[in-house]
Amino acid sequence: MTVIPDLAAVEAMDASDPLRGMRDRFILPEGVIYLDGNSLGAASKAAYDEIDKAAREEWGQDLIRAWNKDGWFEMPLELGDRIGRLIGAAPGQTVVADTTSINIYKGLHAALGLRPDRSVIVAEGGSFPTDLYMAEGVASTRPGTTLRLEGVDAPEIEDLIDDKVAVILVNHVNYKSGELRDMATLTRKAHEAGALIVWDLCHTAGALPVDLDGSNADFAIGCTYKYLNGGPGAPAFIYVATRHLTEARQPLSGWWAHARPFAFEQSFDASAGIRRFQCGTQPILSLRALKGALDIWAEVDLDALRAKSISLTDLFIKLVESRCEGLGLTLESPRDASRRGSQVSFEHDHAYPIMQALIERGVIGDFRAPATIRFGFTPLYTSFGDVWRAVEVLEDILRTGAWKEARFAVRSAVT
Amino acid sequence: MTVIPDLAAVEAMDASDPLRGMRDRFILPEGVIYLDGNSLGAASKAAYDEIDKAAREEWGQDLIRAWNKDGWFEMPLELGDRIGRLIGAAPGQTVVADTTSINIYKGLHAALGLRPDRSVIVAEGGSFPTDLYMAEGVASTRPGTTLRLEGVDAPEIEDLIDDKVAVILVNHVNYKSGELRDMATLTRKAHEAGALIVWDLCHTAGALPVDLDGSNADFAIGCTYKYLNGGPGAPAFIYVATRHLTEARQPLSGWWAHARPFAFEQSFDASAGIRRFQCGTQPILSLRALKGALDIWAEVDLDALRAKSISLTDLFIKLVESRCEGLGLTLESPRDASRRGSQVSFEHDHAYPIMQALIERGVIGDFRAPATIRFGFTPLYTSFGDVWRAVEVLEDILRTGAWKEARFAVRSAVT
Repeated sequence: MTVIPDLAAVEAMDASDPLRGMRDRFILPEGVIYLDGNSLGAASKAAYDEIDKAAREEWGQDLIRAWNKDGWFEMPLELGDRIGRLIGAAPGQTVVADTTSINIYKGLHAALGLRPDRSVIVAEGGSFPTDLYMAEGVASTRPGTTLRLEGVDAPEIEDLIDDKVAVILVNHVNYKSGELRDMATLTRKAHEAGALIVWDLCHTAGALPVDLDGSNADFAIGCTYKYLNGGPGAPAFIYVATRHLTEARQPLSGWWAHARPFAFEQSFDASAGIRRFQCGTQPILSLRALKGALDIWAEVDLDALRAKSISLTDLFIKLVESRCEGLGLTLESPRDASRRGSQVSFEHDHAYPIMQALIERGVIGDFRAPATIRFGFTPLYTSFGDVWRAVEVLEDILRTGAWKEARFAVRSAVT
Repeated sequence: MTVIPDLAAVEAMDASDPLRGMRDRFILPEGVIYLDGNSLGAASKAAYDEIDKAAREEWGQDLIRAWNKDGWFEMPLELGDRIGRLIGAAPGQTVVADTTSINIYKGLHAALGLRPDRSVIVAEGGSFPTDLYMAEGVASTRPGTTLRLEGVDAPEIEDLIDDKVAVILVNHVNYKSGELRDMATLTRKAHEAGALIVWDLCHTAGALPVDLDGSNADFAIGCTYKYLNGGPGAPAFIYVATRHLTEARQPLSGWWAHARPFAFEQSFDASAGIRRFQCGTQPILSLRALKGALDIWAEVDLDALRAKSISLTDLFIKLVESRCEGLGLTLESPRDASRRGSQVSFEHDHAYPIMQALIERGVIGDFRAPATIRFGFTPLYTSFGDVWRAVEVLEDILRTGAWKEARFAVRSAVT
């Protein structure tokens, strides 16, 4: 029989949490339990320090000299390698650049270019939509390219893979349900069919350990403003396996992707290595907030992170299902922790006003249409006590019907 | 006969400068005469204030709620319209997004899509190279598309325009020589041949008044980190004339370009209006530095700006040519101010070490291969006294041969 922890047990979990010291590194508003770090990660003192340094010391005092003196030009590669450690990528395969959407475009184009005799892109109907929109954009520039969708053309992505498939674009963790795919197995199936695979790590990087190299992945992309805490709209990353770096090409061939960017040549000549997946000049101030956030990540043990993530999400599910039993909630996320990212989603017929009521009471998660309330658990700054208090508020809102009074809407511009 | 101003005359020019109060809004390092604002514009107190507010109050305290509460999601359109005022674009045609290189890609794709029976892109051999690299990238995704270059295929861009040309990509001000093209005339010639035109305003926006609408321009792109002072790598802008907004399409069709971005639909449906030239989530902290810079621009009279720019560059040319006569410098920029942007370039056989020596002495311009020293004059914070002192240092370096001792290199990652 499942044992439901009481408050004393929850407090004991916090007391023995090896990551509990990390919370002090972050800025968290008073009176808020923040369970939306899977949409926008929290600010940190380290990020503020880097922003201040970049703006005041470097931009303000070094001006143009900062591009060399302060390492601005190489920063996308340096930060890429630091993210690489968190996603199982050896150095030289990851670069911070542009946005997730744009990196999807680069990755899909590169993959299609490596499979010139194939013309099908496989993706998930339940993907965060920008993945599908960018796949459509790529297809619009490659006549004959078609898109097959899991959940539309077949129930499972594996059923869509055949010898016409050039590339599979797939989320490691689904943004809505939190379902975690088996990276090594699906990558192997793609390769057995002669296809390549692009992994979307938006809801994975900083949420759990990833093993891109060990899984033999081809490409990966992801954002840095969710679990990595890089700041609102911080530049995204792209990973390209070393074995593809010589042949892989992408059409956003800006000067930062050139072999000799400062020779100002008239013709494009792609850089060796991951630099060829850059394009143009990057937003340095936003990059520097990310650098600060990654300074914190350098101290984090990813196995401890995953263990705490599972404990947090398991605890949340247990408490909600026991305390809110019969109040209309249905678990949408996998119950099996090994198949779940660091978020928990429930369905409810009145999901939208319930989430508004939670936010009014200081418990910030988010709503996803049509009927999902979604809660992200960020092991660096979410405590077990937060989980306890969040469930108390949720239970109260459901029992009292307080959600019928919820007043305002939060619309998120991040996934 | 040309009258060469003396120091008293130069001081009088500063005393009567209607823009002299603007200098106090900017952060300028002690002991530096900064003539590289055409590469990276200076920081301002207004930019710092916006960064602090965005990082500390909004990201730190509002977290995910800031996307609505603090207007983050709409900011690219708001800032686009504010830039629009500086480039002669009525509201609803300009959006801040991504990088210059990426916006070139969008603009060229859209233009080619509007001229489906044509396949030639005309550009300048002497363009800043990323324009050419992006044109190559676009061509790589549209079989049959070819590139014709001014200076390679013909001496003048007008000689390359015929009924096969879909689009002309041209710089309003050349990054190296500072030569200013006649926007209205070239646009008319393009249209007479049935072609469209994309204006690169990187060295124009914030340097002089531009009249996109009045010139009947089709598309324009540009960066915000030069004369606009938006901060290192601040997001770029793209302008699309209203008459094209219904038909124009670009393949970087991310969710911010969708008609209903929060409906999370599976298929892409382009937004009405300029939103369709967005792609993904933008770097908010970098955008906010730009917002601060644009607060200053709201107070600037563009005719006064142009008048001062011409006075600064005329003064620099006069002083250099009189005081450094016979010391090996040749004017590379147009002598006629009406054909010149806000920069002056000279050629010299030893341009590289001369610029290094200038920088060591606190006069910051930049070098462009093979033999150009380039000086940008930013009317908001460059004084006539700066021009006087810069020429004194240049003369001294040339007369004494001090450039033979110059020690270090500055490499700029911006144009």
